[in-house]
Order: sequence, then structure tokens, then C-alpha cells
Amino acid sequence: MDLTNPMNCFFNPRSIALIGASRYETKLGGTILKNLLKFRGEVYPVNPKYSEIMGLKAYPSAADVPGAVDFAIIMRPAVEVPEILKGLEGKTSCAIVMSSGFAEVGEVKLQNEVKRISDASGIRILGPNCMGLYNPYQSLDIFFISKERLKRPGKGNVAIVSQSGAILSCLLGAVRTARTGVSRVVGYGNAMDIDEAELYEYLAGDKDTEVVVSYIESVGDGRRFIDKAKELSEKKPLIILKSGKGESGQAAAFSHTGRLAGRYEVFHSVLRRFGIREALDFDGLMDATKALSFQQTGRGGRVCIITNGGGSGVLAADECMRQGLEVSALPLNARERLSKVFPHFYGINNPVDLTAQVRDEDYATVLEELKDDYDGFLVIALPNVLGITEGLAERLKAAILSVKKPLVCHITDANITGKLTRLIERARIPVYPSPERAVRGLKALLGQEEKT
Amino acid sequence: MDLTNPMNCFFNPRSIALIGASRYETKLGGTILKNLLKFRGEVYPVNPKYSEIMGLKAYPSAADVPGAVDFAIIMRPAVEVPEILKGLEGKTSCAIVMSSGFAEVGEVKLQNEVKRISDASGIRILGPNCMGLYNPYQSLDIFFISKERLKRPGKGNVAIVSQSGAILSCLLGAVRTARTGVSRVVGYGNAMDIDEAELYEYLAGDKDTEVVVSYIESVGDGRRFIDKAKELSEKKPLIILKSGKGESGQAAAFSHTGRLAGRYEVFHSVLRRFGIREALDFDGLMDATKALSFQQTGRGGRVCIITNGGGSGVLAADECMRQGLEVSALPLNARERLSKVFPHFYGINNPVDLTAQVRDEDYATVLEELKDDYDGFLVIALPNVLGITEGLAERLKAAILSVKKPLVCHITDANITGKLTRLIERARIPVYPSPERAVRGLKALLGQEEKT
Repeated sequence: MDLTNPMNCFFNPRSIALIGASRYETKLGGTILKNLLKFRGEVYPVNPKYSEIMGLKAYPSAADVPGAVDFAIIMRPAVEVPEILKGLEGKTSCAIVMSSGFAEVGEVKLQNEVKRISDASGIRILGPNCMGLYNPYQSLDIFFISKERLKRPGKGNVAIVSQSGAILSCLLGAVRTARTGVSRVVGYGNAMDIDEAELYEYLAGDKDTEVVVSYIESVGDGRRFIDKAKELSEKKPLIILKSGKGESGQAAAFSHTGRLAGRYEVFHSVLRRFGIREALDFDGLMDATKALSFQQTGRGGRVCIITNGGGSGVLAADECMRQGLEVSALPLNARERLSKVFPHFYGINNPVDLTAQVRDEDYATVLEELKDDYDGFLVIALPNVLGITEGLAERLKAAILSVKKPLVCHITDANITGKLTRLIERARIPVYPSPERAVRGLKALLGQEEKT
Repeated sequence: MDLTNPMNCFFNPRSIALIGASRYETKLGGTILKNLLKFRGEVYPVNPKYSEIMGLKAYPSAADVPGAVDFAIIMRPAVEVPEILKGLEGKTSCAIVMSSGFAEVGEVKLQNEVKRISDASGIRILGPNCMGLYNPYQSLDIFFISKERLKRPGKGNVAIVSQSGAILSCLLGAVRTARTGVSRVVGYGNAMDIDEAELYEYLAGDKDTEVVVSYIESVGDGRRFIDKAKELSEKKPLIILKSGKGESGQAAAFSHTGRLAGRYEVFHSVLRRFGIREALDFDGLMDATKALSFQQTGRGGRVCIITNGGGSGVLAADECMRQGLEVSALPLNARERLSKVFPHFYGINNPVDLTAQVRDEDYATVLEELKDDYDGFLVIALPNVLGITEGLAERLKAAILSVKKPLVCHITDANITGKLTRLIERARIPVYPSPERAVRGLKALLGQEEKT
């Protein structure tokens, strides 16, 4: 591991010093230390009041720690941060400043001082005012929230890059709900030094990461941001949720991170021009993330909807139209063949309506017949009828191996659907609770052009 | 009860005949009969093969049933329906034709024949091709889906009027998930005779109903529909989800119910002109329904956001802008007073940012201070921090009694939030899983004008 790259220092360190370690789990410095206990490298708690904390030898200052440390975590009041940083010169080349009390509350001078020390000493800084980071592949957990308060997702292929700690915690919860996992997670706060662009560059080359989710309130160097976002999204899907879209949102974003949000319209049109995916809101972000985490992207916009509920098929077709996807008519020969094998009351159109008389295998029949005619498939299985069973999961699992194209599912939240949904998602087919959200998931897999 | 009004026959009958009753629960006629067993009035199963079904005396034909019946349920193949209807003349004045196989599959002639018999005999008809109805206030359950497959919501104030049975079953599930209940539920299918307009008229006067949710694919008599929708929405909130918005959706709607969907743009602008609420998709429909079921509507569009997570506040402010709600600055005097009672690092703006150091009582402090300055409130409580406890529910319950204005909540799905959410919703404050959905709920309470 090349530890001259600060990103490797942060995500794959051998040793960490925690300045502001506490013996009390109710204190932030105690929560972080507890979360660090699972880490397999060296952890050095720094606190002049103790010689030992949570079973680890403690040191009065970072200078007293034997040898170099790959990075230092600073969890002390903002005013102390400049002196602490100076004391770290020569000891480490990377630091996370988790403390708040900088530009986001108007303390611009203090933040500038920290920046000057960082530049002069060469110590790269994540933060300040940040949530920390998490790499489940290294059992590395640097959050100031306990696992009881915020369950961590397991290993997976989704990287989360969030300027806001609050949104980061919401995203972690949502990733767990979506039954997927994370590769790298970072809350970069005020982005005084390390920003989204540098994180994108790292994630573009990270082999554990297949999808990148990025929550942004403000961008520092616009050109560099666009360059790195573009480079990243050429290698793997990057989905950005930009907040601060209106005047009131922009004011809120400023008081939250101390960076200007900029004109949203400009941001939006630039992303669009470079083909970078953008989510419109939190749910849209998670719907796209789930799809991209589960499946490979495809090409084209011709969608086939297969449903056992007429109304749900119509709502899905409406959303396809809004998303610029085409619910095109069935080819004549396929129509004829399906009419021969299905009861006369099935609707052999697009959406294909298998009605309340549906049987699990009907979905497989349609998928096999139409797999070459469409670019993506939406399976709607309303489980209130007798013909839908847990066996549907096996049918879809087999079908997707043959179809080899994006395939998503809508299944309603009903008492009998928990297990069915789990089984289908185990086959890497994302399941959504409404027809429209399923279409949005499919859209994320089929490309980012919008109908204007 | 005035049983000359066919709506009372359907929703408050004393006696029901089920033509096509089966002794097998796996058959539709058996499922319906089983669901009818809880009904406190008379139930007459009609099936020439048996003298008794599920403990009830069975009759060879409807004519053999002693005395009149308030309505008849017909669950026999479509081709038999005309003869069955003729046999009901003089016996009943109302019938539900649940069977499919009419205009929705091209059998327009058969449907027209049924219509002629209905007109000639005066028998009013719900359906055909319909899901039936449900009135929990009378333990009246006429669905062909078992309770195991589709749990019913309990008594509540939401009426559901759905053309599609599939969407009806999804709505029933969603109402349960939203922790509210229903007053009257009806799936009216092909709307050959009784249509949404007549149902709206009935629900406008129904005292158990405070909110009406209507899923529509197509409208027969446009002028009558608008008149009745307008009359209803002047008395209580009516939220319409219209599907078949694009060409592909319209084609799907036609093959599903045999009625033309019409140009959506016309429909949309008419609803808007008359101030009738419209949901854009299924989730939007349920977000609005939950809010309107829990709270009284308010006036104005000035919103105050109170959050303990900066990023979530910004996303909410963005959605307010999209919804035409105003996140206006705090009045100066209120700002000063709050600055005195709160720590200096709290953000005393709008959104009010209580940061990760929040305590439950801070929300109450802000609500009390600002109750006269805003028209609606959004409380965002990210429960990953120590200061958020189950005690928040009591605080909000007390606050809303004093605030007396629309108040909604966003709480993330986290492991510790289940009970907190339940407690808050018991105080009739709707809780949403994302900031944007919470804003959409608030918007439903504050009025239907959109920013253009």
C-alpha cells in the first residue's frame, strides 16, 4: 500500500492516534475510541489525564507516541486545533479534524489558520466539522456515533461521499434498508483541504467500489470538481445529490458548511452535459443507488413492463414516460406466440397484464420470449393473489441469467412479502415499494439522458 | 338508514345474497363468503349444488331466497351475468358484478347488454370487473382476497375509491403502513353504472369519512365528474391520482378498463382550476393521505424547519421551494430570544439547526417561540444522537396542542426509531422517512397551489 498517497493513509492505515480520546462512552472522544477497538492496526489514545483508556496505553501528547502514525484524529475544541496540528508536524502526514466551530459558525479566521498550518507542514486534512470515515474492509470505523445509535452497513460495493454528517448517517441507514453494503464511507465536512474531487479520484481507482454516491452542498474549485466527477463516472456510476437548490436552501447550506452553494442551474446543466447522474431528492438517490449496486448498467430505453395488476402497470408506464423511457408495443410474432400459451384474458400488450390469475412461471415465460426485444424489464408482482409464491424468486433468478439485461421489481409491502422480497434481492434483483420508484431504479440502470 | 339510496344499500345493507358462493376457500366465491361471515346482517349463499355452505343455508337461486335482499354479489362467469341479473328483478335493487370478462377484454356487447338490463330493471350496478367494497364500521368485507393475503386496515377516516383492484389492494397496504384507517373502500372497476362521481356524492355526506383518496384511470361523464369532485373537495380533502398520463399509459389504461383515459393535460388543468388536490404518483398520494388523515388543513405557505441535521434541513428547504412553500427568515425578535436560550453554535436561522447537541425540549422551545410566525412546521429529528429520546413524542404532543397548525415530522428509519415514530404518530403527527416526503405531506395540509 502506497502510504504517500494520503487517501491510503486515511482508508488503509497501520496506525492511528486519537487526540481527545475519552474513557467515557457518552463523550464523542470515547465513542470514537470504542468504535476504533475493532481496528486491527495500532491505536494510540492521546489524553494527558490517563495512562490507559479502554485497555489501550494512553499518551500525554501525540509527540509521545512511539514512531510515526499514519494519521491522527483530532476531537478537541476548535480553538485548540492549530496548536495540536503544529505538534503533529513530522509525526504524521494526515489528520482528520472532526471538531466543529470553524467556518460553518463564522470562525473563518480560525479555519484559515488551520489551513495555513496544513499547507506549511504538509499535513493533509479531512474536515474540519466532519463525520469521519468507515472502511468495513479494514474494520476501520471513525465515527463519533455509537453502533447502537447507528447500525453500520456491511461490506459492499457502494462508496458514500457526503459533505454533511447528518445526510451521511441517513445514507448509512438507507443502504442497510436497501439490503446492500458499502466499500468506503467518508463525511468530509467543510472540505478545507481534501474535497470531493480528491475523493472521487481515489474512488475511481478503488477496486472495492463499484458505485459512488455523493451528497454535495457546495463545491470549491468547480473546474477540478467537474474533471474528477467526469473521470470517475466514466469508470463507474457516480450519482450526485446536490442540495441548496433554491435561495432558502442555499442560505441554509452556507450556514451549515461555510461554503457558497453557487447557482444550482449551472451545476445541473454541467452535470447533464457531462453525462453525470444526478438525483433529485433523497429517495431518488437511494432508488438509483440500490439498482446500480445490484446490477450492471445497460443501454437503450425500450422497457417492457410485466404485471399482474393492471393499474400498477399503468402507473409504471406513466413514470416511464416522465423518465424518457419507451414502453413500446410488443413485436407481432412475440404477441402471437404469447397469445397461444396464455389464457385469452391475459393482456398481451405492453404492459403485459397477467391478471389476478397469474402463476409464477408466467413471468419467466414472458421474459424469455421478449428478452431480445427490450433493453430493460420491470416485473410487478402484487402478492395478494394465490398464484404468486416464494417460488417466484427462483424463476426470476433463472430468468435474469438468460435475459442479461437490467431487471427490477415492484412488490408491495404486504404481510406475506418480506421473505419473497429478500429472496429476489438475494438474486441481485432490486425490489421497490411502488411502481414509480421501480421505474426510477430501472432508469438509473439504463442511462442518464432525460426527456426534455 | 335510507335504503332507497343505492349507496346505503351497498355500504349499510341488512341482507346480502352471494351468487356464485363456493365451499372452497381457494375459489373466489369461497373467499368472498368467508370474508362475509363476520358481517352482522343476513348472508344468503346462492349455489344450486349445496343446501349449506360454511354453516349458512344455501339457496339454488336468488329467487329462492326468502324476502328481499339489499344487494346481490355476482361472482359467476361473465356470460352468465345477464341471465342472473334478469332473475334478480324485484328481488333486489342493487348488485355488485365482480366478474371480469367485459369491456376490459373487448366484450363491449356483453357489457352493453348488462347495462340495458340494469337500466330496464332499475337494478343499480357496481362493476363489472371490480374488487368489491369494505366498510369496517359494519364489519362488511366484500373482497375476493383473503385476509391472510391482504390484511385490512382498521376503522379510520380515509375513504378509498379506486377504479383498479390492484391499486386498491396496494392502497389498503399503504394505509396500514401509514398507521391510519379507512371509513369506506370501494373498487368500482369498469364503472358501467355507478362511477366515481356518484361515489363522491355519497362520501361528501358520509360522517365517518374525512379524507377521500381516488385512483382514476378514465372518466366517463367529464362534467359530472368535475361537479361532484368540486362539491366533495369543498367539504373535505379529496386527493386524486390519475393514471394513463402519457400515450403508453393511456393505451394500458384502455386495455385494463375499456374506458378511454382522455388527454391528461386537460384533466390536470381542470383539477387545478377547481382547487382539487392531485397526486403525481403513488408515494405522493400516500404522503398526502397520511397528513390529511392525521391533521386539520391550514392556510398560508410560510414554513419553519426545525432540524438537528444541517443537510436534512437543506434538502427540506429545497423541496419547499419546489412545492411553492416559503422558508422565510426568522423574525428578528424571535431570533434574539432564541439566541439567548440556546448555545452559540446552534443555527438560529430557518431552518433552525439544533445540531448534534440537540435535546428533545429544544424542539418545543422553538415551536412555542415561533408558533405565531409561520403557517406550518417541519420537525426533523435524526435519532443518531444521544439528545433525541422517546421523550420527544411527549414534547411534540404538548407543542401541537399549543401550536394548532400543521406539523409534520421526518425521522430516519434507524434501529431505535420504531417506538419513537409510533409514539409521535399516536399524537396525530405524521412521520416521514425522508425530508422531501415530509415537506410533501406538509404541502398537502397547507393547500394545493403549485409554484409555476
